[in-house]
Amino acid sequence: MKAVLLCSGLARRMNGQVKPLIKVGGREILYRSMKLLERHGVNQFVVVVNRKNRERIEKFLKESGFKFDIILNEAPERGNGYSLYLAKNRISGRFILAMGDHIFGEKFVEKAVKGSGIVCDRNPKYIDLSEATKVKVNAGRVADIGKQLDDFDCFDTGFFILDESIFDAAEELVKEREVVELSDVVKRARLGVHFVDGELWMDVDTPEDVRRAEDALFREAGKGKGDGFVSRHLNRKISTRISRVLAGKVNPNQATLLSFLSGIASSALLFFSIPVAGVLYQISSILDGIDGEIARVTMKASRMGGVIDSVLDRIVDFLFLSILAVLTLSAKVEFFTAFLAVFGSLMVSYISERYRGEYLEGFYSRFSVLVPGKRDERIFIVMLFCLIQTHVSIFYLFLLLAILTNLRAAEMIFKLLESEAYVSSPNLS
Amino acid sequence: MKAVLLCSGLARRMNGQVKPLIKVGGREILYRSMKLLERHGVNQFVVVVNRKNRERIEKFLKESGFKFDIILNEAPERGNGYSLYLAKNRISGRFILAMGDHIFGEKFVEKAVKGSGIVCDRNPKYIDLSEATKVKVNAGRVADIGKQLDDFDCFDTGFFILDESIFDAAEELVKEREVVELSDVVKRARLGVHFVDGELWMDVDTPEDVRRAEDALFREAGKGKGDGFVSRHLNRKISTRISRVLAGKVNPNQATLLSFLSGIASSALLFFSIPVAGVLYQISSILDGIDGEIARVTMKASRMGGVIDSVLDRIVDFLFLSILAVLTLSAKVEFFTAFLAVFGSLMVSYISERYRGEYLEGFYSRFSVLVPGKRDERIFIVMLFCLIQTHVSIFYLFLLLAILTNLRAAEMIFKLLESEAYVSSPNLS
Repeated sequence: MKAVLLCSGLARRMNGQVKPLIKVGGREILYRSMKLLERHGVNQFVVVVNRKNRERIEKFLKESGFKFDIILNEAPERGNGYSLYLAKNRISGRFILAMGDHIFGEKFVEKAVKGSGIVCDRNPKYIDLSEATKVKVNAGRVADIGKQLDDFDCFDTGFFILDESIFDAAEELVKEREVVELSDVVKRARLGVHFVDGELWMDVDTPEDVRRAEDALFREAGKGKGDGFVSRHLNRKISTRISRVLAGKVNPNQATLLSFLSGIASSALLFFSIPVAGVLYQISSILDGIDGEIARVTMKASRMGGVIDSVLDRIVDFLFLSILAVLTLSAKVEFFTAFLAVFGSLMVSYISERYRGEYLEGFYSRFSVLVPGKRDERIFIVMLFCLIQTHVSIFYLFLLLAILTNLRAAEMIFKLLESEAYVSSPNLS
Repeated sequence: MKAVLLCSGLARRMNGQVKPLIKVGGREILYRSMKLLERHGVNQFVVVVNRKNRERIEKFLKESGFKFDIILNEAPERGNGYSLYLAKNRISGRFILAMGDHIFGEKFVEKAVKGSGIVCDRNPKYIDLSEATKVKVNAGRVADIGKQLDDFDCFDTGFFILDESIFDAAEELVKEREVVELSDVVKRARLGVHFVDGELWMDVDTPEDVRRAEDALFREAGKGKGDGFVSRHLNRKISTRISRVLAGKVNPNQATLLSFLSGIASSALLFFSIPVAGVLYQISSILDGIDGEIARVTMKASRMGGVIDSVLDRIVDFLFLSILAVLTLSAKVEFFTAFLAVFGSLMVSYISERYRGEYLEGFYSRFSVLVPGKRDERIFIVMLFCLIQTHVSIFYLFLLLAILTNLRAAEMIFKLLESEAYVSSPNLS
């Protein structure tokens, strides 16, 4: 599938910068859109530029490695409807049209590409409503569109799923008048409306917009599907703020190393001070989120990065718990409990990976598990016990971990068995 | 895609049994072929029957759940070329043709469906050569075909990948003569030849053939991709023989339970006799192969069966090692070593699963690992140490396991890092 990206707008407010090339979260706005579109099947880009930004955008595109066609709009003052019209001969069939100076979030694009027509938002969260283009919908189609509408239902996101028939409307208008805005074309074609509400999309007009877009990207990146309670309510709130500061200075691999080393250091600290070690262990758990957040925001996520990160997590957990056990326990039954705790911790991860390898979907995308015992939760509990270890024996930490993690593992297996029993008895459904 | 299955032959040697419905490895010959074809994209079956077997085959097909069309050949004595001709109006485009009374192995079908024309074997391993149909090849096409050929290159496997043009040749022949064998049609159409050499395929004519086919199926089922040294050279040789006896009496889930219980029993036995427990642990490792073998031969393999089996393996290993540690070790450093051994054992499995979940292919399909430490190898080593534990301290077992497993885990990570460095620097290739 092809995508047309309109980059021929005359940026007046960003002191002559080329807006599609402004970096947000360490990546050019244009790169972000192209990369996201590529994930959803777009393999060729038609980029409409103006005389002023042509050279810089062409240079960027050549370095980016995407397959592209450049179209020069010699008369950008004729409006972006005219820019779209210029792409006419490069397009056949279904295609995507997007504003080159808009930031779109991962989830926005994921939902948007499933529809057709103009993508509209009934609940926009990131834009200045007074500047936005409003859309009045009637029977699922655009009834009216413009910045000054008083009666409207939603906002134009600058993202469209179209087919070549749109060029008929564009051509009519181009013949009728000098300035043709995209909204004119949309109205003339009476485009269908596809709603994507409350997700990240915004145009970037001011340096303040860049900051707001980055805030939003880091917030989105900090929502891990497998996050436990502590991660959601504590770790991610801190880690996304740190990621925000480190992005651009530190790459994901360096962040992985940082969190690994702090985990190893916390294990070593056990020999000197158990409470301090516990706190550092919890800090390393917070830092553990940073690599993934930076990777997602800067679009550098890699499969190997994910694998290495989880293997290092297992090593840190093992070292901390086994050193803590050796330092604090003595009776054989205590050691057996510690074995059980280490085993259960590993099994919680093992089962979800084993499931994913077999069923090709995340365990937590399909099942919700009640018993706590995810890594962030375990580490928080470990820290608490380390802080009160002069009052409560560490043995009870291992007992609690052994119970929680193995109960959680059992719940996971039970959920799986239950779901399969259902699948294999379709007559009962 | 459709498949035509010829079941209109007049079985003279199997005392009036319906040959396609004879059970081999607990499943009807016809079911085996249909199930294997289904895995390779066949979703509709055209089954040609005769008046004598029609009722029984129709009943079987209705119960099997496959989508099927039945065609009655009122004149089976006119030959199986005539039977194929009768399917003419049900077929368009590419289709598969197979003899309904032939057994085909998993790998045979996998390789066969990739070609086109008649599938021939230059190195048949399971058939009576004097009874087989020979093929003479010239420039990649059938030059001659028949049971009595003196000069030939390969054997007709009874499996074809055709398209509707074959019916032209069949129709010509049906108009010319009374008896039309499939080999006549193949010769007239000058079919292309696709070689699949040395894999399992055979026709089943005698009870002795059934036994030979079952032997072959169990041998094929006993070749696990992730098997270690001990498994290949010891465990599988025993387990496939046991599976052969148990198949039909025991289902895969019962076999999983049997192996799990023997593993748990071996852990409990540690309290009474370490050498006996070690031997039972090794026996449970042999039994561990049976569930998968029976599942594959009887075509009952399930994704959940695989997941549960591996989780139970982890539990048995953990119990055996941690009980052994608690019973035999005392110093803290010894316990730490035991921790390391338990951790490494789990990590070897964890890494390969984590990889599979991320890259959607088996770790061992892509990498070969030098350091031993797979489950079958670990258990064999454990048994050896259990047998000599009065002479050599069990601590050295844990030390050896800790070194082997963690070294193996490190090698796995290293292999992965190395391969990705290669992928991300395509210019170096």
